[in-house]
Amino acid sequence: MRRGHRPSVAPAGRPRLWGRHAVAAAFANPERTVRKIWGTREALAGFGGLPTDVTVQFAEVTDLGRMVPADAPHQGVVIEVDPLPDIWLGDLLEQGRDDRRPLVVLDQVTDPHNVGAVLRSAAAFDALGLITQDRHAPPESGTLARSASGALEIVPWVRVVNLARALDEIGEAGFWRIGLSGAGKRPLGEALGTARVALVLGAEGEGMRQNTESHCDELARLPISPRVESLNVSNAAAIALYAAAART
Amino acid sequence: MRRGHRPSVAPAGRPRLWGRHAVAAAFANPERTVRKIWGTREALAGFGGLPTDVTVQFAEVTDLGRMVPADAPHQGVVIEVDPLPDIWLGDLLEQGRDDRRPLVVLDQVTDPHNVGAVLRSAAAFDALGLITQDRHAPPESGTLARSASGALEIVPWVRVVNLARALDEIGEAGFWRIGLSGAGKRPLGEALGTARVALVLGAEGEGMRQNTESHCDELARLPISPRVESLNVSNAAAIALYAAAART
Repeated sequence: MRRGHRPSVAPAGRPRLWGRHAVAAAFANPERTVRKIWGTREALAGFGGLPTDVTVQFAEVTDLGRMVPADAPHQGVVIEVDPLPDIWLGDLLEQGRDDRRPLVVLDQVTDPHNVGAVLRSAAAFDALGLITQDRHAPPESGTLARSASGALEIVPWVRVVNLARALDEIGEAGFWRIGLSGAGKRPLGEALGTARVALVLGAEGEGMRQNTESHCDELARLPISPRVESLNVSNAAAIALYAAAART
Repeated sequence: MRRGHRPSVAPAGRPRLWGRHAVAAAFANPERTVRKIWGTREALAGFGGLPTDVTVQFAEVTDLGRMVPADAPHQGVVIEVDPLPDIWLGDLLEQGRDDRRPLVVLDQVTDPHNVGAVLRSAAAFDALGLITQDRHAPPESGTLARSASGALEIVPWVRVVNLARALDEIGEAGFWRIGLSGAGKRPLGEALGTARVALVLGAEGEGMRQNTESHCDELARLPISPRVESLNVSNAAAIALYAAAART
């Protein structure tokens, strides 16, 4: 094994996941193909059972440390997986036809910690799924899966080529598309109403692109103090998901 | 200048802050003593004015990169500062005597990203202040200040020696102490009522210590799906602060 820190994506382009929660969730996901497993005897013994047909290699903590980014808390286990199969937006919208689960749409949010935390909150508040634009979102990775704490395996994540066109399709499916923006007229609580909603959030600093904003039905704001410009995007998403779930 | 990555705390024990937001907020804070400033000409020109009586040293981007942790987005400016003066819990409670601003209490949350994000949300929802236990909380640092996006300079942060005793004092001052826990009987929305509240959150995974829980008036839960164990602690804090602010 070579020295130095490797990136979390293996040379073959396969993501590497690590940490107990992320790995246990991957094992439990029938859609996830696990290719390789490395771990300490102690850590691997902690899983109820390992997938069959997969090479398992016992490893020391220091070896595992070299397979993941610096200081990544691998907790004694690293796996190499295939990315999850693509999900089509139309299929996802069909799944949500008879309920009020919200969609989360992220525009240009590139930090894997933030996207992972959004997936975690989306799972917590039973969102229908996450929509991102392929060119402006991070790929599946160990860092993202770790922040998602298992939610990468349970929240449908649709990557689209063109976010504006996806918002058209979402609107046609009957979702009220609310863009979160400091420029919003109504506070989010009022804008939510009782309809099915798609919560659209942009990157911190830049915010949503103009073309994304113009594909929302309404811009709404969180009631924050003028002392701060904005919230962390995953915190804003968590609040929006909570507010949508708390509607009666 | 030596090669390799230095930690964000300078040898003398002074925190180093970086990034436009964090540095501009430090300059604007009369309580903050700035000792040294390094920056590119372009970045420094972007500040309305620099503090007087402080050594300013022009530097290249690569030099700045060596003064901060790996990949830290310094945006062309690094400063060395004194830690903020200590704040006493009694003084903070006195400041909040005539209003309903909530307190945030963190038990054993050690990740500087999370504490920084909590400060940012605390500023956004106009919290009275943050309380942590000295031995179980991160010190001021560049990473924390960056996550706080300026809020480190505006939210009073009280570090106490004994969190249980601090909770006693907070209770005596008339705050309803709500511990966020999956074991809580009522959902947070109900528990909030109309009183002044202290929102108590523990570290992810471990949760609050038993002794911290027993110093709360009530445990309350966020209405999350059984599919996930918990939320990211900064997301949970953001939701709790939003819910407290949204009370009528």
